[in-house]
Amino acid sequence: MSGNKEAEEGLVLAPKFDADGLVTCIATDAATGELLMVAHMNAEALRRTVETGEAWYFSRSRKALWKKGESSGHSQRVTEMRVDCDQDAIWIKVEQQGPGACHTGRRSCFYRAVPLGQTGAVTLEFRDAEKTFNPADTYGKPG
Amino acid sequence: MSGNKEAEEGLVLAPKFDADGLVTCIATDAATGELLMVAHMNAEALRRTVETGEAWYFSRSRKALWKKGESSGHSQRVTEMRVDCDQDAIWIKVEQQGPGACHTGRRSCFYRAVPLGQTGAVTLEFRDAEKTFNPADTYGKPG
Repeated sequence: MSGNKEAEEGLVLAPKFDADGLVTCIATDAATGELLMVAHMNAEALRRTVETGEAWYFSRSRKALWKKGESSGHSQRVTEMRVDCDQDAIWIKVEQQGPGACHTGRRSCFYRAVPLGQTGAVTLEFRDAEKTFNPADTYGKPG
Repeated sequence: MSGNKEAEEGLVLAPKFDADGLVTCIATDAATGELLMVAHMNAEALRRTVETGEAWYFSRSRKALWKKGESSGHSQRVTEMRVDCDQDAIWIKVEQQGPGACHTGRRSCFYRAVPLGQTGAVTLEFRDAEKTFNPADTYGKPG
């Protein structure tokens, strides 16, 4: 098989990391299917997630490996992991511990809708945006 | 509001494009919630998607704007668009036209599972991997 064919039809996990050594990771709620967050994994985060069944990520801003929930307690137990055709994206279905996945205090990071059919500047609309926890309490710093 | 606060709590769509001018875009099936694909949008792809309600992406490998389905006919009508907290990821719920979203001939790009609890080399398992169309027929070239 050619390189592409092997990546697409093969059974070897061979992630296609980008120039920064990362793949995109999509986390959805295992029970509801809701999209919770999009983050990144480096090889070590991926390895730890596979081995432990707990979600580990790599923070691009902090340039550091982090276990989801290490400061908030809102960890994610992975019930299923999948890889996409060209192996540059990982999908995990998770049991989200605690009230939410988003550092802003919401259950999901996707709490604003982009109305369609507009031209020019776009005004967002809050949707499913109620806060389920207070980030200031959870992270111990002003919100 | 600080830059972060404005991005997170504001109502202005102000995507945080990466060094290549791209944001990540997640497409899920509007009816079933199934994760179909992960791709990228540049500013022009995002603008066209918002204006037309049809999914446009930017191909990193071909370095070109593309309308989903332009060669396969498998276009995506967007029923809802959302943006995440730091505005570097877009979520679209789509009505997938035709038999599938993946260029390999499957409905979703995520047709292989990564078994958890393993150390060392990981062997993937096909899951929901039946082909719903023949890429060779659809794209007019050998598969």
